[in-house]
Amino acid sequence: MRFRTRTNHERHLRIMKSYFRKNIERMIGYIPGIQPENAGWVKLNTNENPYPPSPRVIDALRGALGDRLRLYPPPTSDRLREKIAQFFSIERDMVIVGNGSDEILTIIARSFLGEGTEVAMVEPTYSLYPVLADIQDAAKNKIALNDDFTLTDEVFATDAALLLISNPNPPSGILYGRDEMERLCTTTDGIVVIDEAYVDFADCDCVPLLADHENLIITRTLSKSYSLAGMRVGFALASREIIEGMMKVKDSYNVNILSQTAAVAALEDQDYFRKNIARIREDREYLSSQLREIGFEVFPSQANFILVSPSEKSAREIYESLLQEKILVRFFDSDNMNRYLRITVGSKEENRKLLDAVKRHAG
Amino acid sequence: MRFRTRTNHERHLRIMKSYFRKNIERMIGYIPGIQPENAGWVKLNTNENPYPPSPRVIDALRGALGDRLRLYPPPTSDRLREKIAQFFSIERDMVIVGNGSDEILTIIARSFLGEGTEVAMVEPTYSLYPVLADIQDAAKNKIALNDDFTLTDEVFATDAALLLISNPNPPSGILYGRDEMERLCTTTDGIVVIDEAYVDFADCDCVPLLADHENLIITRTLSKSYSLAGMRVGFALASREIIEGMMKVKDSYNVNILSQTAAVAALEDQDYFRKNIARIREDREYLSSQLREIGFEVFPSQANFILVSPSEKSAREIYESLLQEKILVRFFDSDNMNRYLRITVGSKEENRKLLDAVKRHAG
Repeated sequence: MRFRTRTNHERHLRIMKSYFRKNIERMIGYIPGIQPENAGWVKLNTNENPYPPSPRVIDALRGALGDRLRLYPPPTSDRLREKIAQFFSIERDMVIVGNGSDEILTIIARSFLGEGTEVAMVEPTYSLYPVLADIQDAAKNKIALNDDFTLTDEVFATDAALLLISNPNPPSGILYGRDEMERLCTTTDGIVVIDEAYVDFADCDCVPLLADHENLIITRTLSKSYSLAGMRVGFALASREIIEGMMKVKDSYNVNILSQTAAVAALEDQDYFRKNIARIREDREYLSSQLREIGFEVFPSQANFILVSPSEKSAREIYESLLQEKILVRFFDSDNMNRYLRITVGSKEENRKLLDAVKRHAG
Repeated sequence: MRFRTRTNHERHLRIMKSYFRKNIERMIGYIPGIQPENAGWVKLNTNENPYPPSPRVIDALRGALGDRLRLYPPPTSDRLREKIAQFFSIERDMVIVGNGSDEILTIIARSFLGEGTEVAMVEPTYSLYPVLADIQDAAKNKIALNDDFTLTDEVFATDAALLLISNPNPPSGILYGRDEMERLCTTTDGIVVIDEAYVDFADCDCVPLLADHENLIITRTLSKSYSLAGMRVGFALASREIIEGMMKVKDSYNVNILSQTAAVAALEDQDYFRKNIARIREDREYLSSQLREIGFEVFPSQANFILVSPSEKSAREIYESLLQEKILVRFFDSDNMNRYLRITVGSKEENRKLLDAVKRHAG
């Protein structure tokens, strides 16, 4: 099949006519971290887990490869919901499963944000939030954090219909206390979403708040702590009424059969999970102390990454030197963030390679 | 963890306060066909393929089970996009891949439908379309088909921003001609989506129209013709500009790594694909002629299902009798559709079981 070549006049016409909603037309999409296709990289840029998924996950997947793939998956992932509910000692109808927690966040945006609805978020945070707001044509209220990434009083004064807060909050990895989060649920009339994507690496979570705050939604992912970023499984916990409404918004068969299978098996292997979490937490502290020793500012992280600010050379220079050695970390090319690097806690070997390279380039 | 029991007063308060957008609050979600978890059913209700996926798919999946699952998948499924582009002899940037074609349709709704935007669809058709419109709070224009499910002139007179049309169109399975679809692209100023979920079972598709109509989007799925409903892979073909805009709206990592792997392998085994398509088309004609013989009205289908209207007993009675025998077909419990049954073309054995049971119950 051949496609005709367009003339300049036609191109011009096309630029004149846009079929997209205006908010979509003018927005910039979310830019994910670099995902190199080839091997050989020390990949510390997108907060993946350095350890493979549990061997039980691989076994379960192997057993699921067959005729069943031709059939639609269970539409609401009920076996997985049961497993999650059991894990948190809540009811199944307080759980919704999604194609990664990104889809859960998308469902939340579509459920609660109409055109012009106010949505509050702190700044800086997960850079997907403003993108989801723009797709809904909602009114973003970005509330700047203190310089040490702690919350300002302004956060507690919001009357937005939806408040999105990550806890621990990237890119610093700082953990806000459960008392602060409870205060947010009480002072805000709207929905409060606590995005706990990284909470398995932290000392404390906010699930107990669900019992008393029906405007609270907690989101989770199996991408990081369960080493399943490739499988795309996330979920939300909330009141029955909120989950019921969100169910209307999700795509009917939103989680494929193998992802459901992998997630159930992953949750069942808690020994493996706890062992990896412990290793990563320990290595986070080691990496932090080593980088402090060479003069970097390191923020106290409760996630599987650390935010650092180099002392002598610029963050950009160090980022580029590391890139030369096939070591990928995250550099944020914006005025208020370009003095930082965000570094995922890798395996012991990856962390050593990173430290060696940083020592060579930082001085 | 324990959750307090709510008092009636609290329940009442909850009913008073809704956090959801009004359109979400009042809408009814999409209701998928029954998906029994246990085996032993003759499942002819959701248009799945009776044959398993290609052995090459299983091999490819087996080879992909490992450490790679801990990493995010390629965000835009580029290897799969290349494969699809090659298959249709178009450019890669005219392709977007989704978590089933349902996600593709969701992306389309979010891209083109603001609050109150007019979206046109024929009636009856795929019952997801009005749900997607409601989630966007768009203005639905449902245009009734003729009694034989052919298009009326009104369809060609629409000036909606978006027209969603399935071709072949469920539940009849009727195929509209390429000339009619081209006329639609020309008479309409908005976006025309031709949902070709079932087109692999038909005599003709509309991909060649893409060359001349930049308001055209064609959607496809691997769920039915490639036996991969469980893996959730769909895609859209359109102009570069439209694909570029839709890319901004999709979730960043919307297709998991195993689904990308399975889809590439499935597309590579065209011999297997063609053999299954030929069997299903042949069995569709056999099933149709047998049901006509016992007095059913059978619409001429170009899909992997047939719509029938029983002659003596009601559709509901036959549906319920079949259910007793663990044979599932689709019954639509609405005033204008409750005289029909939609039956997926199954394996030869499933079709025989269905025919035997129908013959026993129909008279």
